[in-house]
Amino acid sequence: MTNAFAAEREVILLDNAGVGSSTGETPPMVPAMAKDCVDFCRALNIRNFDVVGFSLGGMIAQQLAFEYQDMIRRMILLGTGPRGGEGMTFTELSLDELGDPVALLTSAFFTASRTSQAAGQAYIERLKLRLTDRDASVSMKAAGAQLEAIREWGSIPSTDRYAMLPRIHQRTLIVHGSKDVFVAPINAFLLAQHLPDAQLVMYPDASHGAQSQHAKVFLEHARLFLDG
Amino acid sequence: MTNAFAAEREVILLDNAGVGSSTGETPPMVPAMAKDCVDFCRALNIRNFDVVGFSLGGMIAQQLAFEYQDMIRRMILLGTGPRGGEGMTFTELSLDELGDPVALLTSAFFTASRTSQAAGQAYIERLKLRLTDRDASVSMKAAGAQLEAIREWGSIPSTDRYAMLPRIHQRTLIVHGSKDVFVAPINAFLLAQHLPDAQLVMYPDASHGAQSQHAKVFLEHARLFLDG
Repeated sequence: MTNAFAAEREVILLDNAGVGSSTGETPPMVPAMAKDCVDFCRALNIRNFDVVGFSLGGMIAQQLAFEYQDMIRRMILLGTGPRGGEGMTFTELSLDELGDPVALLTSAFFTASRTSQAAGQAYIERLKLRLTDRDASVSMKAAGAQLEAIREWGSIPSTDRYAMLPRIHQRTLIVHGSKDVFVAPINAFLLAQHLPDAQLVMYPDASHGAQSQHAKVFLEHARLFLDG
Repeated sequence: MTNAFAAEREVILLDNAGVGSSTGETPPMVPAMAKDCVDFCRALNIRNFDVVGFSLGGMIAQQLAFEYQDMIRRMILLGTGPRGGEGMTFTELSLDELGDPVALLTSAFFTASRTSQAAGQAYIERLKLRLTDRDASVSMKAAGAQLEAIREWGSIPSTDRYAMLPRIHQRTLIVHGSKDVFVAPINAFLLAQHLPDAQLVMYPDASHGAQSQHAKVFLEHARLFLDG
């Protein structure tokens, strides 16, 4: 997927603070993660860009578009939900689950169907293709901070539940699996209802890894969106 | 839109019984409308086809895929909802409204935004382009039967509300406006949740005429879907 994007535009894969090959400490809040991303971009003198954010990354993307609106041209939100969305406090998710990527991929990124499991195996094989400069696995400490951040993001505020979204004016593409067991699909619908300029695409028989399962058509949809 | 589809495949625009240039009587039930469509296809020896259905046409398309599954390859459902969907009994809709197409287009097919109203005007101008073989306006009698049919389709059954949908296995593209005032957008989400192989696309700032407002990208999405 990265290669396909990179064929037509410059792609920067950011290991945010404390994640993968980046040093530093992972903050336990989405706004602080967005700030780290902004500091990174400013250090590289990147003033305006499109952002693709998956899951927690999609929460960071929303925060970027909201708080640093001049920096973000368009955004693609993959398998994510709004602040205070439906069932997004992840009370059943344990740190052990986040720390076992292959088990997480098989159980939460793909559905039980034969087609989806086969797409999952193909995805896991693709992940092995890079032989050099591989990222370090996420540390339990970073995973803990990430879990804390998504739980805070997912907590329902007492008033003005989706107040942030009408103030995000960037053109947005929302992509979700119709059977996402991790971030319930209704969250993608809620984003599309409350963001002023968002197109929603939802793929069948797909869970949290919808964009990887339907990679070919997703890349077509993303290209139409970014070039349109 | 028809021309764009017709550039790559044969397109048949069906005036169903009692509608437009077709004689006969419009039946007040979706299954009878589907049967009329099937009779038409059989008379032309069309055994397998893709169906694009808009609004009531999308209800007929679902009935076709459900009841005559060998005949339907794929279907595109535009601005429609499932049998017994949300807010689909159209209690506030009067026959007078259905009988005044231009007022209906301006108020229900496009949103109040400047962009959407401009798209609406462009759409109304496009509708005038055909100079010969124009369809007759829908008669009040036919409109009354259509209204009866959509109200019956929209009535919520006492049990097994969406039982029809898991039994429709055709690959489906659902297209809807995120601000559809005629068929509430949640119905498109419900179709995507319950149909086994349906992709959902929802366009921003668009009402019941979403596919006309976003015609360019819709045609790209439809082509990817039909050829994929």
